[in-house]
Amino acid sequence: MLPHAAPWKTVPLRRVRGETSAADTDRAATEAPLSITVQGEPFVITMRTPGDDEALAAGFLLSEQVVRRSSEITAVVARPEGDGVDVSLGSEALARLSARAAERRQVTTTSACGVCGRPTVDALKTDADALDSSWTVASSLVPALPDRLRAAQSVFDRTGGLHAAGLFALDGTLVDAAEDVGRHNAVDKVIGRQVLAGALPLSHRLLCVSGRASFELVQKAVLAGIPMLVAVSAPSTAAIDLAEERGLTLVGFARGDGYNLYTHPHRIA
Amino acid sequence: MLPHAAPWKTVPLRRVRGETSAADTDRAATEAPLSITVQGEPFVITMRTPGDDEALAAGFLLSEQVVRRSSEITAVVARPEGDGVDVSLGSEALARLSARAAERRQVTTTSACGVCGRPTVDALKTDADALDSSWTVASSLVPALPDRLRAAQSVFDRTGGLHAAGLFALDGTLVDAAEDVGRHNAVDKVIGRQVLAGALPLSHRLLCVSGRASFELVQKAVLAGIPMLVAVSAPSTAAIDLAEERGLTLVGFARGDGYNLYTHPHRIA
Repeated sequence: MLPHAAPWKTVPLRRVRGETSAADTDRAATEAPLSITVQGEPFVITMRTPGDDEALAAGFLLSEQVVRRSSEITAVVARPEGDGVDVSLGSEALARLSARAAERRQVTTTSACGVCGRPTVDALKTDADALDSSWTVASSLVPALPDRLRAAQSVFDRTGGLHAAGLFALDGTLVDAAEDVGRHNAVDKVIGRQVLAGALPLSHRLLCVSGRASFELVQKAVLAGIPMLVAVSAPSTAAIDLAEERGLTLVGFARGDGYNLYTHPHRIA
Repeated sequence: MLPHAAPWKTVPLRRVRGETSAADTDRAATEAPLSITVQGEPFVITMRTPGDDEALAAGFLLSEQVVRRSSEITAVVARPEGDGVDVSLGSEALARLSARAAERRQVTTTSACGVCGRPTVDALKTDADALDSSWTVASSLVPALPDRLRAAQSVFDRTGGLHAAGLFALDGTLVDAAEDVGRHNAVDKVIGRQVLAGALPLSHRLLCVSGRASFELVQKAVLAGIPMLVAVSAPSTAAIDLAEERGLTLVGFARGDGYNLYTHPHRIA
């Protein structure tokens, strides 16, 4: 059995509904790094759900305009370990790749997703300080946060096209909120304002996001020192694993009077 | 008035509901490139919704682990043109940035989002061939696609955490579908399989996505030669602009018996 080979994994959680709570399990979508090499050289690392990795590599090279037609891909082989795809290209595509590499050498390239473009999987891990564990919040507060975030959002988002991120005090007061077409941007904005205000680490704050909880959002919370992340939708396996490892309390499916609690429950009374 | 300075823009569209259709306008979330420089050197280009760009830059540098504390940012200035933020860092952060740049020079870095990391905004534009305009599909077919995609998805996605992309024939038959925690990955997979099958350009196919339509998804469709993109949710301004420019028929809010039609309506009978 390969690690992360399945598109989902069964994960333990506590299902909280009003005053009651029960241990349960659910399926979480697998999110795991895939390394794509071209002619044996590292090209990119991307977080993805395992499966059809050769197709992902081919589509990605088309999107990146390295490949323009099918015949330019001379070989594409998924590694048996399930963590990489090795691609061989024809001479035209290789020439395009070299031209791009030369063009990009002039700048420090990176990516807004906080994950892609890292040379190794180890570089994805953070060396942030330990998260604060001195406080608890009331359980009833947790599922109320998304509604409070939406209330702040209602004036701004008339487009249906924006993700929201909100920073809350431990009593549930909204401290700040941001919206963006990119959910990573919404989180970067709300945390960035605190950076500019000299307020880090955000050890007495909760972060609430309007969508799913991915690896990168957990990573952003950890780096800002935020000990709890509340998401309206599902967390990925990598989000759960990183939260577990770094001591972050991860909540998903926060709706109505309930939520699912995945890691470090001690911060919820 | 700055270009793209507002978080939304009023866009023209046709609102189609069953047999009826009417010209209307709606607000679309602005998606526009932001260039972040550090010490005057290009650091990254990211697609974002304008507003709080200084905070976005600060939060992004924290997420990228270039900055670890507020005091390391010595200046952050948004350009009056609204398309960039210039950041100055203290010596510790600069040393971290240099170490990262040296580490990354060994690989051709890029990003899975198809946008970030490009040295200039012009590099975001594609030089793909013109899209096929020889066919039309029935209007009633368009809002049916998301349900057909969801039906194919129901076995796989039991997690609530996956985005879906489906490729359809002109008669509405589902040709292929893919799911992933990243919507760009789902699209890359479904297109990548066709690349590996030697089937490009996909001039007689429709692409349907489970979420919003961003610049990068329109770009991926154009590069694969797909003339129509149907999204379940809202398109961004950059998605609409690129679709208009490249001749792609862009549909949003495809639900029930209706949809919104943003660009190039001639492919819908």
